[in-house]
This record gives sequence, structure tokens and C-alpha cells, in this order.
Amino acid sequence: MIPVPNEILSTLRAAKRVLVASHIYPDGDALGSQLALGECLETLGKEVFFYSEEKVGHLYDFLPGCEKLRHSLPDISGFDCVVSLDCAEAQRLGKGAEQLLTAKRLIMIDHHAGHKLFGDLQWVDPDRASTGEMVYDLMVPLGVEIPYDAAYCLYAAMVSDTGSFMYSSTTSDTFRVAAELVNRGVKPSDVAGRLFDNFTINRLRLLKLVLDSLEVHADGRIALITVTPEMFSETGTVAADTESFVNYPRSLASARVAAFIKETRNNVISVSLRSKGDDCDVAAVAAEFGGGGHRNAAGFKIIDGDRAKVSRELLQKLQKVVAPL
Amino acid sequence: MIPVPNEILSTLRAAKRVLVASHIYPDGDALGSQLALGECLETLGKEVFFYSEEKVGHLYDFLPGCEKLRHSLPDISGFDCVVSLDCAEAQRLGKGAEQLLTAKRLIMIDHHAGHKLFGDLQWVDPDRASTGEMVYDLMVPLGVEIPYDAAYCLYAAMVSDTGSFMYSSTTSDTFRVAAELVNRGVKPSDVAGRLFDNFTINRLRLLKLVLDSLEVHADGRIALITVTPEMFSETGTVAADTESFVNYPRSLASARVAAFIKETRNNVISVSLRSKGDDCDVAAVAAEFGGGGHRNAAGFKIIDGDRAKVSRELLQKLQKVVAPL
Repeated sequence: MIPVPNEILSTLRAAKRVLVASHIYPDGDALGSQLALGECLETLGKEVFFYSEEKVGHLYDFLPGCEKLRHSLPDISGFDCVVSLDCAEAQRLGKGAEQLLTAKRLIMIDHHAGHKLFGDLQWVDPDRASTGEMVYDLMVPLGVEIPYDAAYCLYAAMVSDTGSFMYSSTTSDTFRVAAELVNRGVKPSDVAGRLFDNFTINRLRLLKLVLDSLEVHADGRIALITVTPEMFSETGTVAADTESFVNYPRSLASARVAAFIKETRNNVISVSLRSKGDDCDVAAVAAEFGGGGHRNAAGFKIIDGDRAKVSRELLQKLQKVVAPL
Repeated sequence: MIPVPNEILSTLRAAKRVLVASHIYPDGDALGSQLALGECLETLGKEVFFYSEEKVGHLYDFLPGCEKLRHSLPDISGFDCVVSLDCAEAQRLGKGAEQLLTAKRLIMIDHHAGHKLFGDLQWVDPDRASTGEMVYDLMVPLGVEIPYDAAYCLYAAMVSDTGSFMYSSTTSDTFRVAAELVNRGVKPSDVAGRLFDNFTINRLRLLKLVLDSLEVHADGRIALITVTPEMFSETGTVAADTESFVNYPRSLASARVAAFIKETRNNVISVSLRSKGDDCDVAAVAAEFGGGGHRNAAGFKIIDGDRAKVSRELLQKLQKVVAPL
């Protein structure tokens, strides 16, 4: 565990106006850690601007404080510092990246591996399970009495990025922080219910179609599912509705690697990859397609691709990854 | 949190021969806490007899130490004490209950509510999320250096009985103990993988068919799914493969109650009921059909029933339960 650098603490202590940002297509960890950090800084009397390129989708709009998010950038020169949360590279900040990089002080806090460092001050620890977990450990030395809403957001961030403590990234630090957040009044079943019991009927119909696409290869060691633009239009769903679907191919007892190939719009293809154990590094596979991530959870995106071709090339690479030594 | 009674500690300290038992149809918490307690007592130099009426099924046979379980009772008079784990009443000890009750000292350790106390020494705490969590807190004052296998079993017990920390029973104590067990080398993803990533392709095919049966009523407040003997034969699956399927209708954001109607063999109908929050008591609904359970999780079984008729009658009763006041 890498402790928070002192210069980040002193910069945040001194700052009066702070802008907090996270990555595009924000997930629970991005939004939860952003909202929590912002609210905690507000309790210290700082003025906080919450920036997010897009509106929050229905999966995460239960997070308290969502309504504070603004979708266009103010004049960056007016802020003492900008904090980038959960972004493995500057590009992930979206359209505003270039402008955000002009900040007086740009602090990046993140837990992804294979990082492209940016900004002035970095706290990057790939051994942490979520950025939310790190934000908790940032608040303690700043002397923040974490308010309930912020604790709720941090807990949601942690649960979201560990699949409720099931992913290999989960450590004793994860549980230590979870215990502290529950001590602040967070109810685990409430957060889990909001994060996981959020299906619409259309989303269940989409799941059914996606399960139909299941393919297994290499004696069941590779499992793939696919979603197409036709499935979205047939069920009246959107890309965000596929959240966590990659867990279905992953749940096959025989699967060593799982892939979810998403053609969200015609020829726009996102792929989520998962693996189990230490043998299969899906971050390396994602990197071959220009993506990134962790050993057990990675992804890539291709604009103007051909789904059949991407599937074929991906399968070839995965077959090498799961090949017996 | 109720601390472990001193008399239980002194009885275990003094005992040379101990028999550990848990309930019939044992789940992860029963087996995990039993195997862990037994192994820990062995490290203190005690002779331990592991009793379980039945053989362990394929869902839990990954638990280290399973092979130590014996399926017939020895002469109880030869033991200094018997420890009953995770049993809410003596009957749950199964066929051996009467004999086990003749032990010199019978210790019961359990976390269920609505308890029928039995035995000589009781440690019952319905505020604890699992018996495994309690066994950990029993080992600390006994000075046991918990071995890896026992830590693994305790962690599995906890994950199993909290749905990976998602049920409302999860507390900060649950997370405190989980952190300690991970510090002893347990890998959360390994245990979760064994407990939850146990799908076969046929089971995923069955899930797809069952999702096809989804019906919603009362503006989405009631969600029902059904499995038929035809679906089992079409996919080559058995009743045990439907484990946790009731979570799908439950996962609809609009659902207040969920039901899973299982015709496992022709005219043999089992129904699982779930509800959310405090408003809908499904135990009362189950009772009308001769079943039982808790407010949020209950069920009933009808031998020689007509599925369409059971579904119709059930729906009528559920409509009353979710009716706005």
C-alpha cells in the first residue's frame, strides 16, 4: 500500500477552490469517489466544482450529490487545483482533458495498473481495489469527519469496483475501509440493492438475448457473449444496461477468460475482458487492441471496427492466453 | 454484539475430546464454521470428531477438511463436550439429535433469530451475520493461531451467509473479521469463485428459458418466474441448478415481491418467495400454503398440485400483499 504523498495533502489543505473530475462513461467508482471527495472538501470550507462530461445514467443516479455535477467546464484558471479521480490516462478525462491539464496544480488519484501518468502530483496505487478506498485514506490525514453521504458514495464506489468484494483486487485494506464506512451508518444491503437490484424488464429481456449469444471455446476455458445494436433496439435498452453482463460468461466454472463484445452503435465496438486467477493476463490482450486495465479485468474500444473481425482476432489472442503451457 | 460467555471458553480449554456438529442439509456457514472450529481445536492439541449426517454435496466439497467428516455417531459419553454450530433448534441436528443431547456438556453457538435454546451453554447472537464470524471471535480469546485452512472455511462461511456482504445482516464486525481472515492469506476471489462461479453451460441455458417465463403484475410490484419439467429435460439440468434464480425477478427495481414457481417433477411444486423492505411479509403468504420462512424469504411445497392453479392462487394472495394501503 502506497501512502498518500504529503504534497497532495498540503496542496489540498491550502486550496480554496477545487475542481473534481473523473473519467468519461463514469462507473460507480469514478462517480462515488468524485462525489465523496468533493463533499469532504466542502466540509473543510472549500469551494468545489463537480465536473462530469455527461449526465449520470439511471444506474448511478441514486448516489447522493449527483445533482451537483456540472457538464461544462468553467474557467480552469480560477481553481487552485484540479483532482482527477480514477483516470488511468489524461484522455479518459474526455473532451475537457486539454483544458484540465492547464490547471495550476493537477492531482491524479487512481488505482489502475499500466498507468500513463499525467498532472503535477500523482498518487497511483494499483494494489488498491478502488479509487474510493484511496479517497477514504486521503480523508483521514486531512482530518475530515466524513459525512454520511460521502461515506455512502465511497462504499458504493468500493462495492462497485470489487463486484461486492468478489474480485481479486479485494484486500484486507478494502475490508478495513468498508468496516469504517459501515460504522458511519452506511447499510451494505441498501447500497447493494441500489447497485445490483436495478433491472428493468427491458434489461432482463436484453440479458436473455445476450445469453443466447454465448459461445465457448478451448474446452470451455474461453466464454464470449455479444450484444448488437439490433438487440438494443429490439429491447429498448442502451449500452449502460449491459453493466455487469460480463459476469455471466465469467460465472462458467470452466471459464479461465471471459469476453463481452459490445457493438453499441454501428461499428463502434467496446470489449470487456475478465480472467480468473494469476495465469491469464487480459490487460496484455487489451493492450494489443490499444486498451488497458488490470490482469483480471481489462477492456478496449474500437471506433469504426467490424464486429466479426474483432471477435475473430480476439478469439485467436485469447486462445494463446489460455493455452496449456 | 454479545461476547462469548466465559464458561464456553473454560469448557473448551479444559476439554480433551470434542465432537463438532452442525445442521442437516448443511450450507456454507454450517460446514465452514464446523470445519474451522474443529481444525482450530486440533491445533490446541484436542482430539476432534467431525460429525455430519450426510455427505457434503458438490457445492461445498471444495472446503478444506471436508474429508474429515464422519456420517455416523460414535459413543457420545466418550467426549468432554459437543459443540453445535449454526443450529436454531435441536431438531436441526438431525437423526443424531437425541443422542447428542446426552453429551456431558453441549455448547451451542448460533446466529439465527427466533431460537429454541437447547444444550448446557449457549452463545446465540442474532446480530451476527454468520456463525463463522462468531467462531473467529471465539478463537481469539482461546489463543489459537488460526491455520490457513480454518481461515478459508470461516471466510467461506461468512461470504456464503451474507451473499458476499450484500445481505442486511452484514455489519462492521463482519468486515472486521473478513479483514483479519484475508490477513491470514485467504484470497476473496478464490472463495467467491468457488461459491458463485459454478455455472455449467446447461445451467446458463436453463436460466435463459426461465427468464423467458418472467411475468410482472401490479405495475411491476410483483415479479414471477417459472421452471417446468420440460425446461429441465431440454437443458439436461436438475432442481439444484435453479439455486439463486429467484434473485432475477427480485432484481427488478420495481419489484416488491418476487416468486419462483418450480415444478421439479410432474405435479411437485416448490415455490420460493422474496420481498424487499419491511412492508411485504412473504412468510405469511407461504404459511397460507402450508410453508414458512422469514419476512423477506420464505417458501412452500405442494405434492400433487396443478402448476397453473398454484400460480393463480399465489398471484391473488401476492396482489393483496403489495396492494397500496
